[in-house]
Amino acid sequence: MPLEWRLVEAIIERALEEDLGAGDWTTDSLIPENHRTQGTILAQAHGVLCGAEIAMRVFQRLEPAVEFPHALADGAPLAPDMPVLRVAGSTRAILKAERTALNFLQHLSGIATLTRQFVDAIAGTGAQIVDTRKTTPGLRLLEKYAVRVGGGRNHRIGLYDGILIKDNHLMALGGDIREAVQRARQSAHHLLAIEVECTTLEQVRQAIEAGADGILLDNMPLDLLREAVQLAKGRVRFIEASGGVNLQTVRAIAETGVDYISVGALTHSAPIVPMHLEL
Amino acid sequence: MPLEWRLVEAIIERALEEDLGAGDWTTDSLIPENHRTQGTILAQAHGVLCGAEIAMRVFQRLEPAVEFPHALADGAPLAPDMPVLRVAGSTRAILKAERTALNFLQHLSGIATLTRQFVDAIAGTGAQIVDTRKTTPGLRLLEKYAVRVGGGRNHRIGLYDGILIKDNHLMALGGDIREAVQRARQSAHHLLAIEVECTTLEQVRQAIEAGADGILLDNMPLDLLREAVQLAKGRVRFIEASGGVNLQTVRAIAETGVDYISVGALTHSAPIVPMHLEL
Amino acid sequence: MPLEWRLVEAIIERALEEDLGAGDWTTDSLIPENHRTQGTILAQAHGVLCGAEIAMRVFQRLEPAVEFPHALADGAPLAPDMPVLRVAGSTRAILKAERTALNFLQHLSGIATLTRQFVDAIAGTGAQIVDTRKTTPGLRLLEKYAVRVGGGRNHRIGLYDGILIKDNHLMALGGDIREAVQRARQSAHHLLAIEVECTTLEQVRQAIEAGADGILLDNMPLDLLREAVQLAKGRVRFIEASGGVNLQTVRAIAETGVDYISVGALTHSAPIVPMHLEL
Amino acid sequence: MPLEWRLVEAIIERALEEDLGAGDWTTDSLIPENHRTQGTILAQAHGVLCGAEIAMRVFQRLEPAVEFPHALADGAPLAPDMPVLRVAGSTRAILKAERTALNFLQHLSGIATLTRQFVDAIAGTGAQIVDTRKTTPGLRLLEKYAVRVGGGRNHRIGLYDGILIKDNHLMALGGDIREAVQRARQSAHHLLAIEVECTTLEQVRQAIEAGADGILLDNMPLDLLREAVQLAKGRVRFIEASGGVNLQTVRAIAETGVDYISVGALTHSAPIVPMHLEL
Amino acid sequence: MPLEWRLVEAIIERALEEDLGAGDWTTDSLIPENHRTQGTILAQAHGVLCGAEIAMRVFQRLEPAVEFPHALADGAPLAPDMPVLRVAGSTRAILKAERTALNFLQHLSGIATLTRQFVDAIAGTGAQIVDTRKTTPGLRLLEKYAVRVGGGRNHRIGLYDGILIKDNHLMALGGDIREAVQRARQSAHHLLAIEVECTTLEQVRQAIEAGADGILLDNMPLDLLREAVQLAKGRVRFIEASGGVNLQTVRAIAETGVDYISVGALTHSAPIVPMHLEL
Amino acid sequence: MPLEWRLVEAIIERALEEDLGAGDWTTDSLIPENHRTQGTILAQAHGVLCGAEIAMRVFQRLEPAVEFPHALADGAPLAPDMPVLRVAGSTRAILKAERTALNFLQHLSGIATLTRQFVDAIAGTGAQIVDTRKTTPGLRLLEKYAVRVGGGRNHRIGLYDGILIKDNHLMALGGDIREAVQRARQSAHHLLAIEVECTTLEQVRQAIEAGADGILLDNMPLDLLREAVQLAKGRVRFIEASGGVNLQTVRAIAETGVDYISVGALTHSAPIVPMHLEL
Repeated sequence: MPLEWRLVEAIIERALEEDLGAGDWTTDSLIPENHRTQGTILAQAHGVLCGAEIAMRVFQRLEPAVEFPHALADGAPLAPDMPVLRVAGSTRAILKAERTALNFLQHLSGIATLTRQFVDAIAGTGAQIVDTRKTTPGLRLLEKYAVRVGGGRNHRIGLYDGILIKDNHLMALGGDIREAVQRARQSAHHLLAIEVECTTLEQVRQAIEAGADGILLDNMPLDLLREAVQLAKGRVRFIEASGGVNLQTVRAIAETGVDYISVGALTHSAPIVPMHLEL
Repeated sequence: MPLEWRLVEAIIERALEEDLGAGDWTTDSLIPENHRTQGTILAQAHGVLCGAEIAMRVFQRLEPAVEFPHALADGAPLAPDMPVLRVAGSTRAILKAERTALNFLQHLSGIATLTRQFVDAIAGTGAQIVDTRKTTPGLRLLEKYAVRVGGGRNHRIGLYDGILIKDNHLMALGGDIREAVQRARQSAHHLLAIEVECTTLEQVRQAIEAGADGILLDNMPLDLLREAVQLAKGRVRFIEASGGVNLQTVRAIAETGVDYISVGALTHSAPIVPMHLEL
Repeated sequence: MPLEWRLVEAIIERALEEDLGAGDWTTDSLIPENHRTQGTILAQAHGVLCGAEIAMRVFQRLEPAVEFPHALADGAPLAPDMPVLRVAGSTRAILKAERTALNFLQHLSGIATLTRQFVDAIAGTGAQIVDTRKTTPGLRLLEKYAVRVGGGRNHRIGLYDGILIKDNHLMALGGDIREAVQRARQSAHHLLAIEVECTTLEQVRQAIEAGADGILLDNMPLDLLREAVQLAKGRVRFIEASGGVNLQTVRAIAETGVDYISVGALTHSAPIVPMHLEL
Repeated sequence: MPLEWRLVEAIIERALEEDLGAGDWTTDSLIPENHRTQGTILAQAHGVLCGAEIAMRVFQRLEPAVEFPHALADGAPLAPDMPVLRVAGSTRAILKAERTALNFLQHLSGIATLTRQFVDAIAGTGAQIVDTRKTTPGLRLLEKYAVRVGGGRNHRIGLYDGILIKDNHLMALGGDIREAVQRARQSAHHLLAIEVECTTLEQVRQAIEAGADGILLDNMPLDLLREAVQLAKGRVRFIEASGGVNLQTVRAIAETGVDYISVGALTHSAPIVPMHLEL
Repeated sequence: MPLEWRLVEAIIERALEEDLGAGDWTTDSLIPENHRTQGTILAQAHGVLCGAEIAMRVFQRLEPAVEFPHALADGAPLAPDMPVLRVAGSTRAILKAERTALNFLQHLSGIATLTRQFVDAIAGTGAQIVDTRKTTPGLRLLEKYAVRVGGGRNHRIGLYDGILIKDNHLMALGGDIREAVQRARQSAHHLLAIEVECTTLEQVRQAIEAGADGILLDNMPLDLLREAVQLAKGRVRFIEASGGVNLQTVRAIAETGVDYISVGALTHSAPIVPMHLEL
Repeated sequence: MPLEWRLVEAIIERALEEDLGAGDWTTDSLIPENHRTQGTILAQAHGVLCGAEIAMRVFQRLEPAVEFPHALADGAPLAPDMPVLRVAGSTRAILKAERTALNFLQHLSGIATLTRQFVDAIAGTGAQIVDTRKTTPGLRLLEKYAVRVGGGRNHRIGLYDGILIKDNHLMALGGDIREAVQRARQSAHHLLAIEVECTTLEQVRQAIEAGADGILLDNMPLDLLREAVQLAKGRVRFIEASGGVNLQTVRAIAETGVDYISVGALTHSAPIVPMHLEL
């Protein structure tokens, strides 16, 4: 799914607002209004690019007629000193937009890069890397887009577009999975799938019998995970694993036969890919 | 400076909006409206707490009458399994707010924790750790607050509340520092200080002569840095260093006698402090 | 699922805005500021009540301390001259809010009432009445709530929380259902179910083989509908019918064994339930 | 008065928002980004078109460069299978905008069509059909525009642009029409006319003597209505009738000599004019 | 008509926003969070108070629990050193709100004071002072409220709630007043009165014959004005004068027998009533 | 610093909104949709122009294709009957935008004109005229721009971009200037200068010793002011005077050797420069 630009404009606007406020005293004092220049954003590390079009819109917001003689596409591999985006136009506009454009690029490329590492680590296994709702407040749609750019897939976007019955729900209900699935089936609309978080084989069995569409195997040791997969394969539409996932453990988890592995770190702890702008 | 709550409400609102959207099908289907419970947010690692009051407001937004029998204050040290916040009220409200509250807590505590590490690393040197404008789009005010909670200080908030003449400004002007400082002094209002980014001793000399209030020594090797500090000490109001700063290098930089060390990583690459909510 | 009040406040605000604008010249000119009164909203026809709490919020928006000595709950049966809501407080506030409160009540009760008629018409058949996306612009969440109050169920809320492959999608793709389902399965997240609109038995067969979660049988004559149901029953999670549904035809459609019958008229053409306010 | 487009953009934006949310999974999964097509919106019943330009803006909001090889103008008569609007452009944009565009067109054409029926029913009588404040929350300006397109006229837009002294105002004041008119004349600005709702001849007399600009004869039997008109004609600037108005009764009411007949059903209970889009 | 508080909140919010921005560094650095104080706003000149309740809301916005041991009501006469409002609460909140509260008070009291001078100047003549649309952008509703507080009356609020046919309209139409009034009567709703701007007796005659509700005599010398009044008195509902109105000329204008005298200076050029806050 | 257009659009939008509301009944009733005309805004007094580009945007907001055959630039000297701006386009758009465009032009030109008078009055003294935070709520950025256009300079924009320790701050702290400056230096970021308001020589001495960047000499008699300047010159970066400043006193104040003279009247009490539009 592509970015919904309708929603991105407001995010860009707020980012510019918090940096520019009443105006950029330095640039407006120093640089004449009609001064024009060309700048290049350069990567300073290896990684996967994400946010090129967003960065372009940041510059355009301050000067609609700005031009981009060169631009890599999202998903492009990055290396140190590689030109990512070349921008030509009003010097004032370029300098005012610089930091905001870089903040988007570095953050989203960081997420795409980390995602790519997880995706590569399980290449050939048949499993897929998915994200979570552990995102930076206000940036969920962009961060989930960065996961897709990095080769991952999305989990549900929020609480509103999928049913995931978690331990806390079951605890509040006294642990009855059958009852939980039934209530969800009766209340939620029929285009939402129902997934049940399980930590024991007994729960897996109950979820299957209750008619869940999928199961989430949380924090299971590899042996148990394998057993759970064998129990559930073919009896639910999908099997997902989560918990204790890192670049060292992810391949072994994938090889148990799960369909999806969800990784919170993709969006909550990815370090940036450093970049800078040179005039 | 405390958080400006006027501005935080909208950030919380947007964070809830992107998670809740049209509603939480799982919770509303499973949990009866009048079901009440108590939950505890527990730290899962060492660190410095930041965001407790924000998390409380997230819960309150969904149930104004929710209660907090226990709450650590921002700045409190965290350790694994330490209870951070206890919340009692409508089960529906608690489960709907859980993820959003945790996303704020984990992210901001991550920043406060990393800041604290830098601050501790230079203890006793007289230098101070400051942040940058390399923040996550939309969260600058919160992230700069987290830096303060971690014992750091803020740099200017945006382009609108300080003059920092950087290499790109000088390049566009042909490199004339005297001219640049003069223009800034003529145009900008008199309550803004003027700082000049320098990479050579010659630039430091020019900045001092031009009457800059402070200088930013960027990416200088330690020897050069020391020389620059000796040249400028007492002749400008403040000296700041940046570039190549990490937990290994920061103390040596501080010992050169600079007043401030700015660290982009505080806000652009701090890993979260993991936490979870148990009912 | 209950109403998400977070989202309703803005709808109420806009409704008051378009009626009150710069102020109510008549009421403010005639009625002294401290004049207090009690008013009763009375139904003028039979029906199902929907919107009582919304109406209360409308009054409260203009006078937070207003009181409601009597209020029927949403879902209550209405009859001519039946008191729906009694409101006591500032006469100015009551008269200014009157029309907006009634506009919500009448419109939503109209939808709940029509829904109830469809629901009653298929009582005992095992099928359920669901709504569509044919709603009044700006009021979708309220109208879908009214359908639930009337005993119906919701279809997906929008394009973002379910996959429905329709004739126009297939046309653009050259009609290949297998390809369409596969693409949706690859791109969309795994918590969304996939439904395929079918008008022939051949399409039903293809949808089943493609692994659709459900099928929508659109505008099929009863005989064909019955055949399609027999073909699909047990091989997809759900079967839905649409097209040509009215109070005369709906029971026969339900008796074919479909799970859901979607009815656009519920939200696009329900006449209001008339009500008025008496002081 | 033409539509104020300044105000319509926000209504369109909200309508798209509630349908599209985070994105259209079906269309974006199935249809390639550069796929282009042409679609035609066809009427499925007789009626009066309203909303063509609004529908065009809905499509343009998702693809600014979309083209319209054919478009009927608002006010055009509709018949089954008549092409209303032809749209050519990105298939994705057309499919995403389809439902929202149709929802506006069907609803507003429904209002224009019902208005036209009332207008035709009183042709040649000298009376005019006007709307009321009984509109769908959030859509008042559009619905009042649809009434004009159908040949009707507007009553005041809201409480802020006209004085209408109603039964509830009089009740709160003890019934003194003279006092009420006087207060309104003293407080309200001089460019607002004052209309008084009357249900008896005595009230009509009082309103005339009090200097009302017009009277609203509410729910009067035909005989009484005729008497009231004779009493008031030439002594107030206008005479309006309301209450018990339907397509059977409206001509007789018009023939009593009233200037305006206000009809709530125009905006609160008009069934849609069905349309659909074919690729 | 009282202030519509619904609309004032946003104005207050914006005023605080432009003064406070990211926060008040001075106050937050110097004053401890729990420091409490009492402050008094004192008038520094004679005048008429306006804005007391608005000022209170400004303080409350920053500290809901702030108290007001003393407060004059809007309309109260002011004199040098007279206490207007006493506020007790958090020192931080009081100091942060001070300037914004004073800016409202001084500006609105300035308008109320100037209005009172005009009103007093025509005491006993039967004429009334009204405002215009020459208001400060963004503050029209507040400024029109200040005119009422000063004893004046409002003209129409904007272009949307009254018909005023001005010279530029007539020029575009070729000067035909009859045609202009007729078009307005046909298009505009019947609760709007029609006023025609006239500069000659011939125009006055035409306006009367065309059935205008009132006339605006613009920039007429006193003799001509008197003649026009005699021509129109009793044949239109109201007569208004404008142009060349100041405190020296206004009484003579009023004595010509006009009903309303509109004065742009009330809102576009009233000097403030100076006030300050003492702790 | 130029105007930040990002922020001006919303101000223009609100100004149009409060004037146009649901629409301009007069213009839309009288003027045919395709009628085109040309209008000229003429000054009616001497002054300094400010707001020309803003006025152009007001017209463009109602008709993007409107043309301006003639336009003076901000800062241009005005004289009676001088054409300021010529606008050609849709008559409807021009008449609807007229009042709002004029309200901006007259108000901002009034401020620029008064500023120019103060600036001229101190020509050759070395002092500069600066504004204050005593601005009209909602228009601060525009009014501070008008001061610049008139040849003045800005003081800080709000509480967020400068430290000014005032009498009320000192009173709350027990009057200790050293302590106050120290706290500000510790908490506020290093790019904000610190200014201390002083009314005695003793306070001036303390502020210098405390290391203030500048001092504000408030309401000092000329003798004392001269003494204070001599005491502080060269020991602080800047000296500002305020209080009792008018066109009669300002030159003598400037001749004491202060750097800045702040004048509240520039923005709170400037009479408009009258203008009107002729078709």
